[in-house]
Amino acid sequence: MIHVGVNGYGTIGKRVADAVRLQPDMKLVGVAKTRPNYEAEAAVRKGYRLYAAIPERSSRFTDVGIDLHGEIDDLVIESDVIVDATPAGVGADNAALYAAHETPAILQGGEAASAVETSFVAQTNYADAVGADLVRVVSCNTTGLSRLLAPLAQAYGVEKAHVTLIRRGGDPGQLDRGPINDILPDPITVPSHHGPDVQTILPELDISTVGVKVPATLMHLHSVNLTLAETPTTESVCDLLSSQPRLFMVPESMKIEGTAHLKEYAADAGRPRGDLWENCLWMESVSTAGNDVSLFQSIHQEANVVPENIDAIRAIDGRTTAEASIQLTNERLGITANRLLPRPTQHVSTQPADD
Amino acid sequence: MIHVGVNGYGTIGKRVADAVRLQPDMKLVGVAKTRPNYEAEAAVRKGYRLYAAIPERSSRFTDVGIDLHGEIDDLVIESDVIVDATPAGVGADNAALYAAHETPAILQGGEAASAVETSFVAQTNYADAVGADLVRVVSCNTTGLSRLLAPLAQAYGVEKAHVTLIRRGGDPGQLDRGPINDILPDPITVPSHHGPDVQTILPELDISTVGVKVPATLMHLHSVNLTLAETPTTESVCDLLSSQPRLFMVPESMKIEGTAHLKEYAADAGRPRGDLWENCLWMESVSTAGNDVSLFQSIHQEANVVPENIDAIRAIDGRTTAEASIQLTNERLGITANRLLPRPTQHVSTQPADD
Repeated sequence: MIHVGVNGYGTIGKRVADAVRLQPDMKLVGVAKTRPNYEAEAAVRKGYRLYAAIPERSSRFTDVGIDLHGEIDDLVIESDVIVDATPAGVGADNAALYAAHETPAILQGGEAASAVETSFVAQTNYADAVGADLVRVVSCNTTGLSRLLAPLAQAYGVEKAHVTLIRRGGDPGQLDRGPINDILPDPITVPSHHGPDVQTILPELDISTVGVKVPATLMHLHSVNLTLAETPTTESVCDLLSSQPRLFMVPESMKIEGTAHLKEYAADAGRPRGDLWENCLWMESVSTAGNDVSLFQSIHQEANVVPENIDAIRAIDGRTTAEASIQLTNERLGITANRLLPRPTQHVSTQPADD
Repeated sequence: MIHVGVNGYGTIGKRVADAVRLQPDMKLVGVAKTRPNYEAEAAVRKGYRLYAAIPERSSRFTDVGIDLHGEIDDLVIESDVIVDATPAGVGADNAALYAAHETPAILQGGEAASAVETSFVAQTNYADAVGADLVRVVSCNTTGLSRLLAPLAQAYGVEKAHVTLIRRGGDPGQLDRGPINDILPDPITVPSHHGPDVQTILPELDISTVGVKVPATLMHLHSVNLTLAETPTTESVCDLLSSQPRLFMVPESMKIEGTAHLKEYAADAGRPRGDLWENCLWMESVSTAGNDVSLFQSIHQEANVVPENIDAIRAIDGRTTAEASIQLTNERLGITANRLLPRPTQHVSTQPADD
């Protein structure tokens, strides 16, 4: 049993905590938070032990009737692995605390690659994180691009990748983000940081990326344009991508026209918070011309790094192979090939009773 | 003097009418409209003669106290050239009416290329429209891409162009357009129609385009990725583009971060309706790597085909060269190289009175 602590209980932290609780080989020690709010209240209702991320502010919790189980040092000491889901930049600062208690830790994609021993995407470089003390699960966009490009690079070779990332302005819970009615090159200078970040996972890949920010909160959209080293067929590309463990190939028959339909479908399928842990790739968008491939995929920024955090915990622990971890994580979350379905335990038979 | 009638007085028609009125060699005969509304009321205030586009509905105008000067047939007969700015699909239906009166006409980009003798972008193929009876000014996106790509193709050769068009969901005045909070591949299938449409202007160009629709109304944004036949420098590309008559190279010093800043700047500069008739291209976004060039440009969908309509009128008339027409149109509208300034007549001296 791997004892896991989660430091930072916001958008990513609360999802990772829930996912940890679903794993048969993990135990959630508790979660650390800086201040009481609706998320802290929900954590208490779920029975999660709460720790004060900033000990001198502990009274803020007790003042509103929320009991704390301890302070951040206690959580770090009691955990075999810490998942740090604090805001960008804070994770790197916290690394010294984890090192002081000799507790290995996972940082998120907001931290610099240089702050950790290895960046991480489960399918691609799980082995690099085995036994590491400090691992970075890359950002949602980098994770999504790595999941897509690694199998294509392996099967065909990628001579050049150019991606326009049309990014949601903020998450649904972020009230002070923009824009409201604008389309922003972000950054205006080309390329964006995403290309170099993908190269922390796929160092050989020739990739350039540009970013655009728009008034939407649900998911990112990637417009992907590749030149492969070989001439593929559209069918062979679709077959390859359909076999990947964390790509949902959206079938034309579903009439899913955008990110809102994807989120609606995930919620209808019983996914917690309507989460999409896998890349969502429109099957009918895959198009080939000579060695070139174009396609659209969407990335749920709140959710798609969650399975990678779970796998990174097992990689650090070192007792499970990449394949076994990915399979177990997918099974426990309910990530199945090419459709979004509720976890098996939630299945309800539709067989008529008398038949 | 070329007598010009405008059939359809909406987003494009009202702007073309205003632009016609500014030309020294043109006279606006009047404008035809299907129904009275705030735009018709504003036309009357400006002293434009109104014609009933649907004669059997003439009473709708008189019922609300708007006098009509005549019916659509009268407008067509009195005009040397008609600019048809009716909704997409209606223009092609109207072609028979214009032909019956032997009045040459200009349709807009919503019509099929096959409906006309030639598609038109002033800088690129003005000569094809000389003496033609039916010309199509291509859509705002196609116009914007042609203005950008034609000089690059001429100077360096373009081996391949891939463009992601991040499109505004609707114009500010379109109340029933979406999306509100979504990012839609539109169409989901690759490529979009824009690539083939650009090839009606630049038939040799190898271009593929994909479209995305987002919750914004102000302008489109193009993420452009090119492979040139020669290796350029960033400076040489910027120099070439800076010399184009309808490209505004947005300088970094202006701190223009998105389409809202562009529109705000145009309004501050005294542009009517805050219109941007030129492509707006972020200078600092131009980036080169080997033979590849990336850049961002924005297109004001309500305005950037207006100068092309004016030039198309002169092309059909046949008495003015392309260069002279472009120069005259730019001068009368106030399109100057690399900055947005009010028309010269609106200049106010900033010299201190006693100096």
